[in-house]
Amino acid sequence: MTELKNDRLIRALLRQPVDRTPVWMMRQAGRYLPEYREIRQQAGSFMNLCQAPELACEVTLQPLERFDLDAAILFSDILTIPDAMGLGLYFAEGEGPKFEHPLRNEAQIKALNVPDVAADLGYVTDAVSLIRRELDGRVPLIGFTGSPWTLATYMVEGGSSRNFPRIKTLLYDQPRVLHALLDKLARSVTAYLNAQIEAGAQAVMMFDTWGGALAHAAYREFSLAYARQIMDGLNRHRPDGSYVPAVFFTKGGGLWLEAMAQSGADGLGLDWTVHLGEARRRVGQRVALQGNLDPCILYAQPEVIRREVGHVLAEYGAGPGHVFNLGHGINPDVPPDHAQAMVEAVHELSPQYHAGSDTGPQPH
Amino acid sequence: MTELKNDRLIRALLRQPVDRTPVWMMRQAGRYLPEYREIRQQAGSFMNLCQAPELACEVTLQPLERFDLDAAILFSDILTIPDAMGLGLYFAEGEGPKFEHPLRNEAQIKALNVPDVAADLGYVTDAVSLIRRELDGRVPLIGFTGSPWTLATYMVEGGSSRNFPRIKTLLYDQPRVLHALLDKLARSVTAYLNAQIEAGAQAVMMFDTWGGALAHAAYREFSLAYARQIMDGLNRHRPDGSYVPAVFFTKGGGLWLEAMAQSGADGLGLDWTVHLGEARRRVGQRVALQGNLDPCILYAQPEVIRREVGHVLAEYGAGPGHVFNLGHGINPDVPPDHAQAMVEAVHELSPQYHAGSDTGPQPH
Repeated sequence: MTELKNDRLIRALLRQPVDRTPVWMMRQAGRYLPEYREIRQQAGSFMNLCQAPELACEVTLQPLERFDLDAAILFSDILTIPDAMGLGLYFAEGEGPKFEHPLRNEAQIKALNVPDVAADLGYVTDAVSLIRRELDGRVPLIGFTGSPWTLATYMVEGGSSRNFPRIKTLLYDQPRVLHALLDKLARSVTAYLNAQIEAGAQAVMMFDTWGGALAHAAYREFSLAYARQIMDGLNRHRPDGSYVPAVFFTKGGGLWLEAMAQSGADGLGLDWTVHLGEARRRVGQRVALQGNLDPCILYAQPEVIRREVGHVLAEYGAGPGHVFNLGHGINPDVPPDHAQAMVEAVHELSPQYHAGSDTGPQPH
Repeated sequence: MTELKNDRLIRALLRQPVDRTPVWMMRQAGRYLPEYREIRQQAGSFMNLCQAPELACEVTLQPLERFDLDAAILFSDILTIPDAMGLGLYFAEGEGPKFEHPLRNEAQIKALNVPDVAADLGYVTDAVSLIRRELDGRVPLIGFTGSPWTLATYMVEGGSSRNFPRIKTLLYDQPRVLHALLDKLARSVTAYLNAQIEAGAQAVMMFDTWGGALAHAAYREFSLAYARQIMDGLNRHRPDGSYVPAVFFTKGGGLWLEAMAQSGADGLGLDWTVHLGEARRRVGQRVALQGNLDPCILYAQPEVIRREVGHVLAEYGAGPGHVFNLGHGINPDVPPDHAQAMVEAVHELSPQYHAGSDTGPQPH
């Protein structure tokens, strides 16, 4: 495969020296970009866009045309796996994702099959291969998935939820049934991420968007345990000798960083409630940290954005192991030039934290 | 005033010995009770119910008729203060609270007046006096308020919000304007709680429902600082020598407990993401802790509820300073007998953690 011209992301996730802090944005290919909205409209539906590799590739590359980012992330949805399992994903206008066939009983959970990635999710791996080709080594491509717990919340609740009454009733009343579902999902996620890696993903990220809704002991048993199972099953060492780092992100998981640091992930995503310096002290040398600007800061004026970027960088402090990002996906009503201000501020303000390292982007 | 026959709550909040862990539930007077729904329907609207002291008194006492609880909490709403400031609180059917006149600019914020509690919120203090009379010393009455930050989110967003785009833009772009609003709210809350204390509230609680949405530094500056200002201004020492403890609860604030413990509050409310034993080690002898069963556990079967109550009690461990509660308000679709199972489990399982203390309820 093509040489990687900018490997800051990979190096930072391995806690190796870099010349400046790498930066990308969760949901960087998305609705805040007018060029995205245009393609999205042409595609007719969000799922059409995900399922057409050429279009997914085009929107994946859009933010890189505007901003000097250090990574591309596959354009897709976290709910492709349950959709491939037959739950019938759809997006109601103005609402979140929904399933036509949510899981309502043990029999439905028992009947679920781990999807055949090649047969059922080939559109994702095709997109990964195409994006890699089009990127031509410019920056690494990040593949991703939802975590088993987060996927299960949508599958059991039937869509987004505020309090998660159905899945939590299942969790407390019939934990073995939920474990059976989570184990199937963990095996599915492992196969899915390995297929993305095989197709060319150079880093992978697992989004545990709703892990923070769990009680602390339930988090360990019903989310983190499956993250560990997946990390154990990832083929992170490529035959060519390169390594594919994995990032695990539990939104609202700041209390549990010590446990998350032992998940086997190379990096942890953090939301904006966490002080990066404290997080760094808590996890020690075990993992890199990715985050964590409050996405709402991008509503503010560029000089405020610059100041707040400076705070995040200063909180992490000097030395390797930090990937700059938002603490959650960019909001759809953010002006693109505010995202630009954030990226530029990272470029300008971060080199001082990497002094003594003259390690710029290196060919891999 | 009448002697307090059951002072477990007060003693626990002062970290004094008790015979068993006191228990009450946030939102214990509420929609999960059929007798509440009946009165609510008679009242016509939620605000009618809040504003009629006889009805507010009746629903405040309803859960005490069913369950052996160690406290009553005033039936009211956190948004009475902004309503008294003229923002026009209303409840759209099936939606959360809304304001007819949300704050959209600096001039509107400057024009706001601190309400005259006697003139504008007399219905609340009247309810407190009436409930005290009807309680006749059976258990203490808790008064409450929303925190300045949480009130401000509704006032600026115009209602509930997911990401708080308007108030966070204000926070980052015009922090002085937001501080002016929060200072007015802090002065209003102080006067409001002092009036509740004067009318007979024997403990007070401040709900910072949305503090957990803030970035860590913003939380300190825009929520915690005002909690401290309010705690400083509370008249907690009554002329009769009794003391009115104050509880501060930031949902999602588990990362910031050390700072919250220095707010001047006697107790901290905790949600279910926090391990009570770890929280206790972190705050030391400074504050009591209140919580923290996941409210969704009340969807489970009674034997599961009992087991999970046991876990919460065991996590706190032996000794004084724990008030048992849910980690958030009880959900409206919980069967009342599940709440009963929780209360009974606390009664049965908690005395072992207070062994050696033969200090039962004492006359105050």
